[in-house]
Amino acid sequence: MTPEEFRQIGHALIDWIADYRANLRGYPVMSQVAPGDIKARLPTTPPQQAESLDNLVAEIGTAIMPGISHWQHPSFCAYFPANAHFGSVLGDLASAGLGVVGVSWQSSPALTEVEEVVTDWVRQMLGLPEGWLGAIEDSASIATLVALLCARERATNYSAERGGLQAEAKPLVVYGSEQSHSSVDKAALLAGFGRDNIRHVATDGTFAMDPDALRRAIAADIAAGRKPCAIVATTGTTATTAMDPIGALAVIAREHGLWLHVDAAMAGAAMVLPECCYLWAGIEQADSVVINGHKWLGVNFDCSLFFVKQADALTRVMSTSPSYLRTSSDDKVRNLRDWGLPLGRRFRAMKLWLMLREEGVAGIQARIRRDLAMAQWLKRAVERAPDWRVVAPVPLQTVCVRHEPDGLAGEALDQHTLTWAERINRSGRAYVTPAQLQGRWMVRLSLGSSTTEQSDVEALWQTLQWSVAE
Amino acid sequence: MTPEEFRQIGHALIDWIADYRANLRGYPVMSQVAPGDIKARLPTTPPQQAESLDNLVAEIGTAIMPGISHWQHPSFCAYFPANAHFGSVLGDLASAGLGVVGVSWQSSPALTEVEEVVTDWVRQMLGLPEGWLGAIEDSASIATLVALLCARERATNYSAERGGLQAEAKPLVVYGSEQSHSSVDKAALLAGFGRDNIRHVATDGTFAMDPDALRRAIAADIAAGRKPCAIVATTGTTATTAMDPIGALAVIAREHGLWLHVDAAMAGAAMVLPECCYLWAGIEQADSVVINGHKWLGVNFDCSLFFVKQADALTRVMSTSPSYLRTSSDDKVRNLRDWGLPLGRRFRAMKLWLMLREEGVAGIQARIRRDLAMAQWLKRAVERAPDWRVVAPVPLQTVCVRHEPDGLAGEALDQHTLTWAERINRSGRAYVTPAQLQGRWMVRLSLGSSTTEQSDVEALWQTLQWSVAE
Ligand SMILES: Cc1ncc(COP(=O)(O)O)c(C=O)c1O
Ligand SMILES: Cc1ncc(COP(=O)(O)O)c(C=O)c1O
Repeated sequence: MTPEEFRQIGHALIDWIADYRANLRGYPVMSQVAPGDIKARLPTTPPQQAESLDNLVAEIGTAIMPGISHWQHPSFCAYFPANAHFGSVLGDLASAGLGVVGVSWQSSPALTEVEEVVTDWVRQMLGLPEGWLGAIEDSASIATLVALLCARERATNYSAERGGLQAEAKPLVVYGSEQSHSSVDKAALLAGFGRDNIRHVATDGTFAMDPDALRRAIAADIAAGRKPCAIVATTGTTATTAMDPIGALAVIAREHGLWLHVDAAMAGAAMVLPECCYLWAGIEQADSVVINGHKWLGVNFDCSLFFVKQADALTRVMSTSPSYLRTSSDDKVRNLRDWGLPLGRRFRAMKLWLMLREEGVAGIQARIRRDLAMAQWLKRAVERAPDWRVVAPVPLQTVCVRHEPDGLAGEALDQHTLTWAERINRSGRAYVTPAQLQGRWMVRLSLGSSTTEQSDVEALWQTLQWSVAE
Repeated sequence: MTPEEFRQIGHALIDWIADYRANLRGYPVMSQVAPGDIKARLPTTPPQQAESLDNLVAEIGTAIMPGISHWQHPSFCAYFPANAHFGSVLGDLASAGLGVVGVSWQSSPALTEVEEVVTDWVRQMLGLPEGWLGAIEDSASIATLVALLCARERATNYSAERGGLQAEAKPLVVYGSEQSHSSVDKAALLAGFGRDNIRHVATDGTFAMDPDALRRAIAADIAAGRKPCAIVATTGTTATTAMDPIGALAVIAREHGLWLHVDAAMAGAAMVLPECCYLWAGIEQADSVVINGHKWLGVNFDCSLFFVKQADALTRVMSTSPSYLRTSSDDKVRNLRDWGLPLGRRFRAMKLWLMLREEGVAGIQARIRRDLAMAQWLKRAVERAPDWRVVAPVPLQTVCVRHEPDGLAGEALDQHTLTWAERINRSGRAYVTPAQLQGRWMVRLSLGSSTTEQSDVEALWQTLQWSVAE
């Protein structure tokens, strides 16, 4: 493709994206295709000759769009908000157009230095202590894996440099809560701890980790000859946005010399509001924290911000320096390959840079305050309605609900819940995610898409009521 | 930003990228800034108010471009080719514009199904056996980590589900060669094997792993009570594109029940040429292989293709299914979170899809044949010149050279080599990477940028000669 052809198709694609974003309300939120439908539209063998992409936009419309669930839609209330603001789309495009790779500072100095600057902007925005350093990882799952690897190595006096985890005398133990995200268990399993050494600490009435239960679990492990290694606390759990008490957990972490990692993947964005910061009080005593740029904050996937108190605890575990990667500036610069799992990286800081400038701190604050207010409105509406129940506290933007008509309980209630949620999703009017809480299904209404307005939340409430009507 | 503003700035950015790509030759290949130069151009605190991005293109020019090393430049011969073809840039833009996230099939069916289709296209292009399945991982580093985690789990009868690696009686051992990429060691360390249990098997005169040396290493480990676990073979090592003998290594892997992973990150792209496939003869006996879409093949970073013979050996280790991720279609579909480390992913298959169609198999083959021919031309030119030496075989696109004027040896020769390489890089005429081979520095000339033409290679040869002239 020549630059001129690219120019033409690129303009058409930009127009298409602008139109798509302007007309989101016209789409069914959740894709309505059946398994295999999209596959069936594509050839089973690769194209032998070059094909023209002149009709790209039309093709995306026919081959791809039916298989899209619209995460930017104002009625997208499933999973978590994953805003992809225009500024970040432009930054991502600039990054792709430049096509540079960060394998060392020298391989594109701007890629590294913009990342240093803008991760520090976010540190300031979240009120994290000076001296903490940030880097962009692919996802919160990866950032939590990185944290547990650092914890594993610190707890074993850097056993990776000797016999590895397999040479350790005492099994290391990782503590999350029964509400921790699945990525915590996955990270612990991948890091070699083993399922027998992962504790799901009990939670209190707000679904937050119970520090006393944590203390008891640690004592039991020590008594049994095991070695406590790391606590993963969550600021904003996936099911209900519960807030583990960071300050209390930090005291325990310090007593036992454990690594305290805070998973604030979704809810971290709320910490740009001074009035929300009490929710993670004590955060300055943690060892690391992850917040996703690619959720509520507004940067398109993938962009997870990982902050660490002592950067050398990270770089010591992650660094590599084969001859072909060494440069004469290595002692004066940051080499991002020493800050995470992969070697190479695209210029991801560009999209964070532009998104932050597009909206400004004040703009982000206003948007997040709006979302919090809408969630409170929805909570009150549900609470006032007969047979409807809000089943968890609503500190942020997620409202967990159940419709509990007279006489329905147990399995029958579960069936009812899954049925009305599926009815909503199949209708295309909204997209919601059922989840289990204390063994029973409920439905998460996760607000926070930047396109969602008060009228959309009111429509959502109508849809909920419609979904349970005969 | 409104859709209309996005449209305007987007058009300007597309134009800028088209112009940039058309005028690559006008830039110094390696960035000439000093550490801190780019940082100094950016504010140290985040913007409070929204800023206009109207002048984005101009700002990229002043704030960012001086800090860019130009990987798409025809004289970029450093590290490895990282082509970012226009089709892939467009696909990436479409992905960012849609802003969808793949946490399950249902969360955007097209994201999953296009990935299934196009990874299978690549499987066919590379001549990998039917039945092997592919998924896109972030990078080869991550794919190799995934492979070693699968190996670890298979070798321990899935110890992650019990006491983890730390409960294993015998230390597990991983085998690479002394020429393996640094990501292999890093992956083994992260997976918990420990440096004491990583073997760097000796290589032969072509820098390929010596199967006899591997046999001896395995025998010694078994005799010492350790448990061989995995072999990582390389098709196209980073320093010299050496080719480990896959067939011979597969025999050994089978004898001892080891996982054989093949790192073909860079060189895998050459396997679209029937005449190159002998270089990895025996590949069908491997357990897994990684080839980077984001190197020679033409897809912008990040896009690594990971193929696995027995998909359940992968999904068994990677899968998670918390209630909030379960859907009614789970038994009929592929959930990509079970195919790698992270949970979420952007729609990465889109860029691979468009890049393959843009160029077609025949187009890719023609380009790669051109690169091979240019490398042979350069090899011959260097060989014919007095005092110059080609220090490794040239099976593909990398020519490893040294200038050895009379009387220069040892440290003095190393100093000379690093000096002329730095002189080239500082001149902006070309970008090359020094590397150590058998303890001595040499310079890798890694061709394969799609923009490189025969005249550029001739100019490169002139530059090399200039760099050693007084
Ligand atoms: C609390 C929490 N942690 C981690 C994750 C995983 O995020 P990612 O997809 O970036 O790995 C999520 C998102 O689902 C989450 O809600
Ligand atoms: C042989 C080999 N393996 C692995 C890698 C790492 O690739 P990635 O940056 O995708 O992790 C490289 C690239 O430098 C390589 O040449």
